[in-house]
Amino acid sequence: MSESTLLVFGADPPPRLDRLAGRVRIVHSDEQSLAGLLSTADALLVWDFTSDAVRDAWPGSGSRPGWVHTASAGVDRVLCPEIVASDTVLTNARGVFEQPIAEYVAGLVIAMAKDFPGSWELQRQRRWKHRETMRLAGSRAVVVGSGPIGRAIGRTLAGLGIRVELVGRTERGEDPEFGRVHGSGALHGLLPSADWVVCAAPLTEETRGMFNAATFSRMKPEARFINVGRGPLVVEKDLVDVVLDRTIGGAALDVFESEPLPANSRIWDVPGLLVSPHMSGDTIGWRDALAEQFMDNFDRWAAGEPLLNVVDKRLGYVPVS
Amino acid sequence: MSESTLLVFGADPPPRLDRLAGRVRIVHSDEQSLAGLLSTADALLVWDFTSDAVRDAWPGSGSRPGWVHTASAGVDRVLCPEIVASDTVLTNARGVFEQPIAEYVAGLVIAMAKDFPGSWELQRQRRWKHRETMRLAGSRAVVVGSGPIGRAIGRTLAGLGIRVELVGRTERGEDPEFGRVHGSGALHGLLPSADWVVCAAPLTEETRGMFNAATFSRMKPEARFINVGRGPLVVEKDLVDVVLDRTIGGAALDVFESEPLPANSRIWDVPGLLVSPHMSGDTIGWRDALAEQFMDNFDRWAAGEPLLNVVDKRLGYVPVS
Repeated sequence: MSESTLLVFGADPPPRLDRLAGRVRIVHSDEQSLAGLLSTADALLVWDFTSDAVRDAWPGSGSRPGWVHTASAGVDRVLCPEIVASDTVLTNARGVFEQPIAEYVAGLVIAMAKDFPGSWELQRQRRWKHRETMRLAGSRAVVVGSGPIGRAIGRTLAGLGIRVELVGRTERGEDPEFGRVHGSGALHGLLPSADWVVCAAPLTEETRGMFNAATFSRMKPEARFINVGRGPLVVEKDLVDVVLDRTIGGAALDVFESEPLPANSRIWDVPGLLVSPHMSGDTIGWRDALAEQFMDNFDRWAAGEPLLNVVDKRLGYVPVS
Repeated sequence: MSESTLLVFGADPPPRLDRLAGRVRIVHSDEQSLAGLLSTADALLVWDFTSDAVRDAWPGSGSRPGWVHTASAGVDRVLCPEIVASDTVLTNARGVFEQPIAEYVAGLVIAMAKDFPGSWELQRQRRWKHRETMRLAGSRAVVVGSGPIGRAIGRTLAGLGIRVELVGRTERGEDPEFGRVHGSGALHGLLPSADWVVCAAPLTEETRGMFNAATFSRMKPEARFINVGRGPLVVEKDLVDVVLDRTIGGAALDVFESEPLPANSRIWDVPGLLVSPHMSGDTIGWRDALAEQFMDNFDRWAAGEPLLNVVDKRLGYVPVS
């Protein structure tokens, strides 16, 4: 394996890769050089997971790496029909983001239930205005996404006394933790009783745009929507409309159709719509954790052992066993 | 009992008291009429718990009600030496506020860990600025107050993976839920390792001003302080100083030395200090819950049965059994 080449994609190199010194030839690439170097690589580490460059460069000519690891939970920016059809093994960063994202979602839920945005706006105005707020315990959440992130969110919300329904691609009549997982066809029937609708689904051709005017119209006027999955799961224009006309009670978005969210986007100043810059899973030390995780898998790859976090490329995510 | 008089103190009458019609003579009083009516009452419902009027009126001449119920968890605004020395039974609203306050504190903790205030300020500026935030799981909290509210807070934070130390008035070597409860003398030793310091103590002569410059100087520069107990537990001037000079990482106050917080208070615009108007426990329906709770205790009083939530007047709270 000492002759192998590891291609690292990303302008900012990962930390601690020096641990691999002497074991593999490491070549760094950026958006310009990627296409030219792809055929020289045995393995590819997608460190910059915010770019479409890998998906764009992959269909070209020449050989392709047999292993691609992306330092993200979602693999939508890597997958193209050619990589799906290939023998290349794709692995992801499952395990790093679950708990941080679950904490983040729980915080958004409480912040909206207790109207923290309102309190801090009143604070800026030096106004003392007591309000009654919502009790979490006994409220109802629908979490869309039954992978590790959706499950961690569901577990954390349930720990706060919220009744959680989990929605996945396919129904599972028996689930050890949630009793059952609803299939995606059940979503519209679950929405009318939800106080919280949380989107943590992978972005696939099936899920793209699944939260649209028709979906939002099923929600209660007081219900809030949270997206920590991928921006294109939501038709943003429809969400803006339903928040503005009070079809729903509010929303929080951490991900967007276009990132960074353009400065001139109307999303920034919709009352009742909270914006954060795709950071829900990114806790202090996350880059170190991602690098460690990659190197653990590298050890397996170098030893010819089965890799962890192998993505089902047709499904677009790592199936929960 | 049909000849008894129930005196209700508070400008806004409680809901649903009509359920007591025919069972007791109900007399309403406000700050002006209270002193004159106190000697006519067999029982007193302190519905307006934000006023010192009961404590001020109590020491006067004439008989005094044998039962006082306050629609609050804290009894500091009712207790005076004369009521402590009397045979009057004092009961409180234990049970109504615990879970809502615990939710509120958990929300503040996550909001500060994930810098929601910063994200929403950046949103106002239409600025996309990714930051790495703090992971809750594995962080450490010290909760001061081992009564039902402190315990509910501790339980909720522990459910988020936070390691919780509970501090009460006296040490308990064995606690079924938290392993142990530290005595107040242990507080200064616990502070240096805490990421979160939450004050949910009753206001007594022992606890007044317990959070002061000396206390805050024991905390870590990144640690945050939260007060949902009573304002005078904290020396506000000292807190402002340590937040401004970054001795500690920030704070959130729901209660204040003077409430409503005066419009000209410097507290309103200390960067890193979050203000809310004494509402952490006040979820929708809370007044109904308080009225129901009082009427349940009224049934016991009328039947000559032992009352629930009897305050140890010398301690200043209902002891946890």
